Amino acid sequence: MRRPLPAAVTVAGIVARLGGEARGDTSRPIVRLASLATAGSDAITFVSSPRHVEAARSCRAGAMIVSPALAAHAAPGATVLLTPDPHLYYARLSQWFESMLSPASVPGIDPTARIAPSALIGAGTRIGPHVVIEAEVRVAEGCDIGAGCFIGSDSTLGAGSRLEPNVTILHGCAVGRRAIVHPGTVIGADGFGFAPSSEGWVKVAQLGGVAIGDDVEIGANCAIDRGALDDTTIGDGCKIDNLVQIAHNVRIGAGTAIAGCVGIAGSAVIGRRCMIGGGAGILGHLEICDDVTISAMSLVSRSIRQPGFYTGVFPLVPNAEWERLAATLKRLPAIRAQLKAIQETNRAKDA
Amino acid sequence: MRRPLPAAVTVAGIVARLGGEARGDTSRPIVRLASLATAGSDAITFVSSPRHVEAARSCRAGAMIVSPALAAHAAPGATVLLTPDPHLYYARLSQWFESMLSPASVPGIDPTARIAPSALIGAGTRIGPHVVIEAEVRVAEGCDIGAGCFIGSDSTLGAGSRLEPNVTILHGCAVGRRAIVHPGTVIGADGFGFAPSSEGWVKVAQLGGVAIGDDVEIGANCAIDRGALDDTTIGDGCKIDNLVQIAHNVRIGAGTAIAGCVGIAGSAVIGRRCMIGGGAGILGHLEICDDVTISAMSLVSRSIRQPGFYTGVFPLVPNAEWERLAATLKRLPAIRAQLKAIQETNRAKDA
Amino acid sequence: MRRPLPAAVTVAGIVARLGGEARGDTSRPIVRLASLATAGSDAITFVSSPRHVEAARSCRAGAMIVSPALAAHAAPGATVLLTPDPHLYYARLSQWFESMLSPASVPGIDPTARIAPSALIGAGTRIGPHVVIEAEVRVAEGCDIGAGCFIGSDSTLGAGSRLEPNVTILHGCAVGRRAIVHPGTVIGADGFGFAPSSEGWVKVAQLGGVAIGDDVEIGANCAIDRGALDDTTIGDGCKIDNLVQIAHNVRIGAGTAIAGCVGIAGSAVIGRRCMIGGGAGILGHLEICDDVTISAMSLVSRSIRQPGFYTGVFPLVPNAEWERLAATLKRLPAIRAQLKAIQETNRAKDA
Repeated sequence: MRRPLPAAVTVAGIVARLGGEARGDTSRPIVRLASLATAGSDAITFVSSPRHVEAARSCRAGAMIVSPALAAHAAPGATVLLTPDPHLYYARLSQWFESMLSPASVPGIDPTARIAPSALIGAGTRIGPHVVIEAEVRVAEGCDIGAGCFIGSDSTLGAGSRLEPNVTILHGCAVGRRAIVHPGTVIGADGFGFAPSSEGWVKVAQLGGVAIGDDVEIGANCAIDRGALDDTTIGDGCKIDNLVQIAHNVRIGAGTAIAGCVGIAGSAVIGRRCMIGGGAGILGHLEICDDVTISAMSLVSRSIRQPGFYTGVFPLVPNAEWERLAATLKRLPAIRAQLKAIQETNRAKDA
Repeated sequence: MRRPLPAAVTVAGIVARLGGEARGDTSRPIVRLASLATAGSDAITFVSSPRHVEAARSCRAGAMIVSPALAAHAAPGATVLLTPDPHLYYARLSQWFESMLSPASVPGIDPTARIAPSALIGAGTRIGPHVVIEAEVRVAEGCDIGAGCFIGSDSTLGAGSRLEPNVTILHGCAVGRRAIVHPGTVIGADGFGFAPSSEGWVKVAQLGGVAIGDDVEIGANCAIDRGALDDTTIGDGCKIDNLVQIAHNVRIGAGTAIAGCVGIAGSAVIGRRCMIGGGAGILGHLEICDDVTISAMSLVSRSIRQPGFYTGVFPLVPNAEWERLAATLKRLPAIRAQLKAIQETNRAKDA
Repeated sequence: MRRPLPAAVTVAGIVARLGGEARGDTSRPIVRLASLATAGSDAITFVSSPRHVEAARSCRAGAMIVSPALAAHAAPGATVLLTPDPHLYYARLSQWFESMLSPASVPGIDPTARIAPSALIGAGTRIGPHVVIEAEVRVAEGCDIGAGCFIGSDSTLGAGSRLEPNVTILHGCAVGRRAIVHPGTVIGADGFGFAPSSEGWVKVAQLGGVAIGDDVEIGANCAIDRGALDDTTIGDGCKIDNLVQIAHNVRIGAGTAIAGCVGIAGSAVIGRRCMIGGGAGILGHLEICDDVTISAMSLVSRSIRQPGFYTGVFPLVPNAEWERLAATLKRLPAIRAQLKAIQETNRAKDA
């Protein structure tokens, strides 16, 4: 945390706001939230895993959020804040600290923004410089639209949503409440649809839109295409990292998290509470059921009907070893055939 | 299709415009193009594959585009529109419907656009808010340049091209006629070229440009780098999906289609009518001949001289199974050696 | 090189500026830098590898940069410029030629830029149209900030840095001297951090920043996230290609080069002088030591403690062969078990 809080809080004050049970000096002034490695006496830190107990014991933090099971490992001098889920507690604390560090944006419309007369802008919304909002757009109350954003005609943005600078939302798309969309992301570009013909590819006009639920966060430089006929849909509470590609007609269930650089091809249907590892690929026209975890850089090429954890990635080895592996791998069917021949010969001999 | 057509068309009207042969009530009013699953009596839909015949039979569409071979499977009540290629027919119909839904943009230059006096802007072109067009740029007639686009000096844009909002084309690049470029795409950034030296990497200035043919569509948030000396070139009729990286000096033949998240390294040469699956990688300084298909997430590490369909991806399995596979895979050369030893022993015994 | 130099230089003039030893007609006028394949008599070219000696011999260039070891292979008519490292010489020459082709930008602030009164803008800096610079930003002297860029509050940009159009740098980020950032790149978006809870994902506010050293170049449409608590850091002299994802808390050592489409997950630590191939993935919370090379599209899933060259990618084969390979691969543990059974039987027989 680069800057200290504008005014210190005490551990007692934290407990009063966020709960938990404090042990030790609860009047200690705290101005930072810090990692175990960098926390000083003016900072609060947290221990979320038994892997960190050694770092915890030698940490110089003034206060430490810890679960009862790990409380014995807290740094000797630190005020201890006990809570069953330190990671969750840290999340809520980080939000509170951020609200103190970053004053809320001031509602109002920058004079350089171009807003169509038929667009409706809710109360308490801020619209930054050089924003463009086209006809019939509805932006709800309490939104924050960063510099250079574009919202195409007929699109809607739910209450309390935030578009960081240079986000592009094209026409006929709906983004729910409390959305956060990071810079450079494009929502509603045409899906990739072409019919082959004797004169080359003929474009299929993309007549659907994008429908995004509430409490969705979308990282930087993502692309979420509009549907060909129906909408591409992303369920409530989904969290999407940077540089993610979501093709036309994809449907993603509520609460699914998608790490960076994932590509999801057209018309794939993904269940609820899935976790898709970074760089993974999901082919089109397949279904993944609820509660599936996909490892980083794995390709899903068929439907998955059972919840679980799936992987498909070539293990990393020194390159010289890989050269041997790759060459031998190509002979695998021959190896198997030779093995069978030996088995049959042995069986014949034994008979 | 989110909104109905402003005025209904009849099946007879569709046939009059796009051809085909109608059977049944050709006066039926149609206001939508819909998928088999969602089409109602006011919609036309299409069947493009025998896999969909069951859905077709139970579909409630008012009209159905179908090939003669599948006509028997059309929904009983629907007006049938026979054509040898329903997918292509659907593509053309979708374009017609879109033209009725989205009125053509009104030519003119937004007062917030910054256009160099030496730039030439063709008749009938629209230039949106906050666009920047530098010196000596030539934009042909009938173009549509979305809000926030940037076109650097000496670049050209062919007639009838459309840049969606927030596209960046740097200096000295040429984009052909009827191009469509989706938001966030960058054309003409410096190629990634550095010479190693005792003081670290020394930049190689990138003195080439980018030359893009006619009828090319490029998705959102792509990056197509300028050449080091000669141009990076993309042939007529290529179709490129979102988040695609095309490095400096790459040359791509006409009609090639590239799915999302593909990366093509420097100086690769790709033939005509190739299809590159999503997330695939193509190393630099190699050649791929015409009519090659690459599976999703496969890496092309050597030149391909034979047309065909190529794949290289680790199959997806439950993670526990993958752990075993990966461990055994590393022993594959040892397995092969052991097998050979047995073969030799057996042979010696038999001798 | 699309355009000729505005005024010719001689080989003698090149040697006077960049060193090396010339043989032949040093008064020959040169107006282009060209590849071996396209160079004519008005061009200088270079030979950097024994692989190109055949092309060198038949090349029509007026002058040729070549190492003493390959000098015998230079085109017969060409003036030869001898230097121990032709690639490095070419890099420096390309920079000189570019400085003649592209006049330096004229300092000044475009009237459409929105700059907070508390921002400090150094002397000799150019700020393009529609730029937004927020409060307390410090832009050093001699910078060039392209159209549509956004720099959030409290961020800094070092002397002589260049932001191409439509770059987004959010609040509290520091970019060093002589940086080059290509269009569409986003620096300082929130890291991807959420705590699971019974009500779904709870956002972890990202309170760190991004700290980027001197002489760093970052390609188009990259995303470099701010840290959760501490800064995401990128060392001096790093070179990063297009569409690269760098997650929160990542630390990258000086001089490391990262090719396009790479994804680096949270809290990964990468050493100095590493080279990460295109499309590679690096999982989070691991360490890679100095001087490691990772092959394209390989996944680093554990820490690497030994310098070297590492690979993990399924080899590309015709798809029909891949189908067999993939099926056999899944039986690899069974193959190994069968082999062991034969070995034991044989051993028992021999005993």
